[in-house]
Amino acid sequence: KSGANNKSWLWIQSVCDFCKEDAGREIFALKVGLAVALVSLLTLFEAPYQVFGPNIVWAILSAIIVFEDTVGATFNRALNRALGGSLAGILAIAVAQTALSSGHVAEPIIVGLSMFMIAVITSYMKMWQALVQYEYGFRVALQSYCLIIVSGYRIGNPINTMIQRLYSIAFGGMVSVLVNVSIFPMWAGEQLHKELVKDFDSVADSLQECVKKYLECGSEKSKITMASIDGFPDEPAYERCLSILNSGSKLDTLASSAKWEPPHGRFLHISYPWSQYVKVGAVLRHCAYQVMALHSFAHAQIQVPYKLRVVFQSEIQEVSNQVSEIIRILGRDINHMKWSLKMSHITRLRSSTKRLQTSLYFQYSYILTSTFESPVSDKPLKSFANIWHTFYHTPYEKGFIEQTKCYHEITRKQLRRVYSWPSREVDAFEEDSEKRMNLLLRNMKALESTATLSLLTNFTSSFVELVARVDPLINVVNELSKMAKFKPDDDVL
Amino acid sequence: KSGANNKSWLWIQSVCDFCKEDAGREIFALKVGLAVALVSLLTLFEAPYQVFGPNIVWAILSAIIVFEDTVGATFNRALNRALGGSLAGILAIAVAQTALSSGHVAEPIIVGLSMFMIAVITSYMKMWQALVQYEYGFRVALQSYCLIIVSGYRIGNPINTMIQRLYSIAFGGMVSVLVNVSIFPMWAGEQLHKELVKDFDSVADSLQECVKKYLECGSEKSKITMASIDGFPDEPAYERCLSILNSGSKLDTLASSAKWEPPHGRFLHISYPWSQYVKVGAVLRHCAYQVMALHSFAHAQIQVPYKLRVVFQSEIQEVSNQVSEIIRILGRDINHMKWSLKMSHITRLRSSTKRLQTSLYFQYSYILTSTFESPVSDKPLKSFANIWHTFYHTPYEKGFIEQTKCYHEITRKQLRRVYSWPSREVDAFEEDSEKRMNLLLRNMKALESTATLSLLTNFTSSFVELVARVDPLINVVNELSKMAKFKPDDDVL
Repeated sequence: KSGANNKSWLWIQSVCDFCKEDAGREIFALKVGLAVALVSLLTLFEAPYQVFGPNIVWAILSAIIVFEDTVGATFNRALNRALGGSLAGILAIAVAQTALSSGHVAEPIIVGLSMFMIAVITSYMKMWQALVQYEYGFRVALQSYCLIIVSGYRIGNPINTMIQRLYSIAFGGMVSVLVNVSIFPMWAGEQLHKELVKDFDSVADSLQECVKKYLECGSEKSKITMASIDGFPDEPAYERCLSILNSGSKLDTLASSAKWEPPHGRFLHISYPWSQYVKVGAVLRHCAYQVMALHSFAHAQIQVPYKLRVVFQSEIQEVSNQVSEIIRILGRDINHMKWSLKMSHITRLRSSTKRLQTSLYFQYSYILTSTFESPVSDKPLKSFANIWHTFYHTPYEKGFIEQTKCYHEITRKQLRRVYSWPSREVDAFEEDSEKRMNLLLRNMKALESTATLSLLTNFTSSFVELVARVDPLINVVNELSKMAKFKPDDDVL
Repeated sequence: KSGANNKSWLWIQSVCDFCKEDAGREIFALKVGLAVALVSLLTLFEAPYQVFGPNIVWAILSAIIVFEDTVGATFNRALNRALGGSLAGILAIAVAQTALSSGHVAEPIIVGLSMFMIAVITSYMKMWQALVQYEYGFRVALQSYCLIIVSGYRIGNPINTMIQRLYSIAFGGMVSVLVNVSIFPMWAGEQLHKELVKDFDSVADSLQECVKKYLECGSEKSKITMASIDGFPDEPAYERCLSILNSGSKLDTLASSAKWEPPHGRFLHISYPWSQYVKVGAVLRHCAYQVMALHSFAHAQIQVPYKLRVVFQSEIQEVSNQVSEIIRILGRDINHMKWSLKMSHITRLRSSTKRLQTSLYFQYSYILTSTFESPVSDKPLKSFANIWHTFYHTPYEKGFIEQTKCYHEITRKQLRRVYSWPSREVDAFEEDSEKRMNLLLRNMKALESTATLSLLTNFTSSFVELVARVDPLINVVNELSKMAKFKPDDDVL
C-alpha cells in the first residue's frame, strides 16, 4: 500500500514540477480562455446574436482553431484560413451558380463531381514540397468549398450564407489574433533566437567538459555502451549537445513561423534574416559532430594512460578554452545582436593552435630522429618487446630516402595548414621564441614514452579539425550579423 | 524572352518529376476525393438528407478532418475526435442542464465561465509531455464543448442537437477510415519498417564510401568547408548518412502513428514492438556519428600521404567490409523479419578486428624497440630533422622504467580489448598462425616510415571504436527480433 502511496506522491510531484517549470504555459492557457470567453460574449448577449444569427458558432470554432502558441504560427493559421476560405468560397459560388442554371438533373452531378475534383486537387497539391507549409490552408479550402456548395444546393442562397459565415469566422480569427499578440505575445523569432544562443553555450560547455574528462586523473572511464546514447551522469552538457544534433527540425519550424511575424521587440527591421538562423544552426551542428567525436575519444575503450594524456595538457587546455570562448562570444553576440568578436580572439586561437600543431610536429621529428639510428643494439632488452625485436633488425638505410620524402610532405602540409588558418587575414603572430623553445624542451622530455603517442594524437588532431570547423562558423555568424545589421563594436573585424 | 520560356519549361519539368516521383501521392489524392464524394452523396440525395437534416454538413467536415496519410494517423485522429467529442458532449450536457435550472441571470454567467474554464484546462493539459500526442483531441473537446453548450443555450435542446451531430460526425469519420483502410492502405508501420531498413543500408554504404575515399590514390581531397555540410558530389551516401542524423523525429512520429494500427501485413502479432524500432534507430544513429567522425578524417585538411594510408589497407578494407556486411545483414534481417546473423559473421569480424589491432599493437612495440636503442649515432643525419636532433641526445636510461610501465599498461588494455570483444561468447578463434606471422612481417616492412604513423592510427583506432559500437547495435536488433518474434534461421546465435 505504501508503494501505491509512493507512486501517487511521485505523480503529484511531477505535476507540481510541470506547473513550476515554465510560466509561459499558464499564460498561454489563460490567453486561450480569454479568447474563447470574448467570442462567447457574442452569443451570450442578445444584441449581437440577433445580428449574426446561429452562424455565430463559427466565430468560436474559428477562434479555437486559429489560436497557436506563437504569434507567427497564429498569423500563419489565420492567413491560411482566410485565404483558403475566401478562394474556396468564390469558386464555390461560381460553381453553384453554374449548377443552378444547368437544370434539375445536372445540378447534383455537377455539385458532387466538383467536390470530388476539389478534394483530389487540393490533396495532391499540398504534397508539393513548396506548398507543404500551407497544408492547413488546403484543408480549410476543401472544407469551405464543401460546406458552401452543399448549403447552396440545399438552402439555395449560397452568397448570403457565405457572407454571414465569413464575417463570423473573420471575427473569431481576429479576436484570437488580437488576444495572442496583445497579451504577453510569444514570438517564434524570440524563441528561435534564444534556442540558437542556448545551442552555442551547450556546444562550448560540452567541449570543455569533454576536455576536462580527457585530462582527468585516473578515474574509471565509462565504456561506450547503451548508456552512452542517453548520456553520462557526470556530464550534464553531453546530453544537451546530443539534443542539438536532433534540433534541426525544431529550428526549421520556428524559422518558418518567425517569417510570418511583423518586426517586433529587438528584431525591428523588415525581412529579418530568420532563414540565416537555420544556416547558423546547421554549421553549429557540424561543430557539434566533431565535439561528439572528441567525446568518443574521451570515452574510448582503448585509453591512453593518464601520464601520457597530459603531455599536451597545457596546449589542449589552452586551445579548448579559446575555442569555447570564441563559441561563447559568438553566441553572446547573437544574443545581444552586436558583433564584438575581436581580431585578438582569432589571433590568440591561431597562436594556440599553432603551438599545439608545433608540439605535434616536433613529436614527429623526434620519433623520426630516434628511428634514424641503428636499431641493432648489444644491450639485452628486458621487456616483453624483446620477443618481437628479432623481427626488425634489418638495416634502415633502404627506407631512408622514402622516409625523408614522406616526412617533407607532412612538414609541408603541416606548415601550409598552420599558415592558412584562419582564412581571413590576421596580424603577424609574434611571440617570445625563446620562451617557446623552453616549453618545447619541457615537452620533449615528457615525450620519451613514444610508444603510445600515436594514440594521443587521435584526440589532438581531432581537436585541430574542430578548430578548422570554427572558421566557417565565424563566417556564417558574421554573415548573419551583416544581414541582421548587428551593431558593431568599436574595435572589431 | 527565351529566359522566361526556359524558366517556365524548368517549372513544367519539375512538376512532371513531382508527378512521376511517387505513385502513392496520386492514390492518396484519389482516396480523399472518394471519401468526400461518398459522404456528399448523403447530402445530394433526398432520402438521407431528410433523416439527418442540415447537420449532415458535419459529416463532410469530419471526413475531411479525419483523413490523414497513414492508417495509424487516421485512426489516431478518429479516436481523438470521437473521444474528445463525446467526453466534451457529456460534460456540456451536464453543465447545460445545471445552467438551465439555475435561473435567468445565472445561466449566461455559468455558460460563459464554464467555456473559459474548459478552454484554460484543455490548453494547459495538452502541454503535459505524455498528452502532447493527443493535442488534437483536446482541441476537438474544446470545440465540441463550446458548440454544444452554445446551441443548448440558444436553441434549448442540447441533447437532440448533440446526438444528431454525433451521428453525422461519426458517419463522416467512419467513411474516411473505411476508405483509408480498404483501398491501398498506407501503413505507418510499413513506412517505419522501410525507413529503418533504408537507414541501415545508408550507414553501410557511407562507411564503405568513406573507407574507399580514404584509401584512394593521391586524388585532391576536398576540404572541410561549408560545402561539406551539404555533402560531397562524389559521395552520394554521405548525404543519406547525414540525413539519418536528423531522422530521429521522423521515426518518432511514424512509431507513434504505427502504435494505433491493428495487426496488418507482415506485422501480425498484437502489440508489435514499434517503440523498439525507435531504439534501434537511436543506436544506429550512434554508429552513424562514428561514421561521420571517420568521414572527417578522410576529408581532414591534414592528410597522411597515400603511401602511408595504405599500410593497413588490407586490414582496414577487411574490417570495413565485415562491419558493413553485418550492418547490411541486420538491415536485411529486419526487412525479412528473420534472424540470420550467424556466429561466423561475428567471429570473422572479431578476427579481422583482432588482426587490425595486432597490427597496431606491433606498430607500438616496433616503435618502442627502436626507441629503446641509444639515439646517439655517429652517422651524420642528412635530413631537415638534423636541426632538431641536437635537442634529444640525452640518454634514455632515465625514462626506461617509466616507459616499460606505460608499455605494459597499454599491452594489458590492448589484450583485454581484443579478448573482450564481442561481449557474447564466441568459439575460440583459430587461425593459421604461421600465415599470420608472414602477413605481419610484410606489414612490418611497410611500417618503416614511423614518423607519420601516429596520424595513420587516428583513422584506424576510430575504426576500432566503430566496431565497438556495432556490438550494442547487434544486441538491440537481437532484442527486437525476440520482441517481434522474428523467424530464426537454422544455424544462428
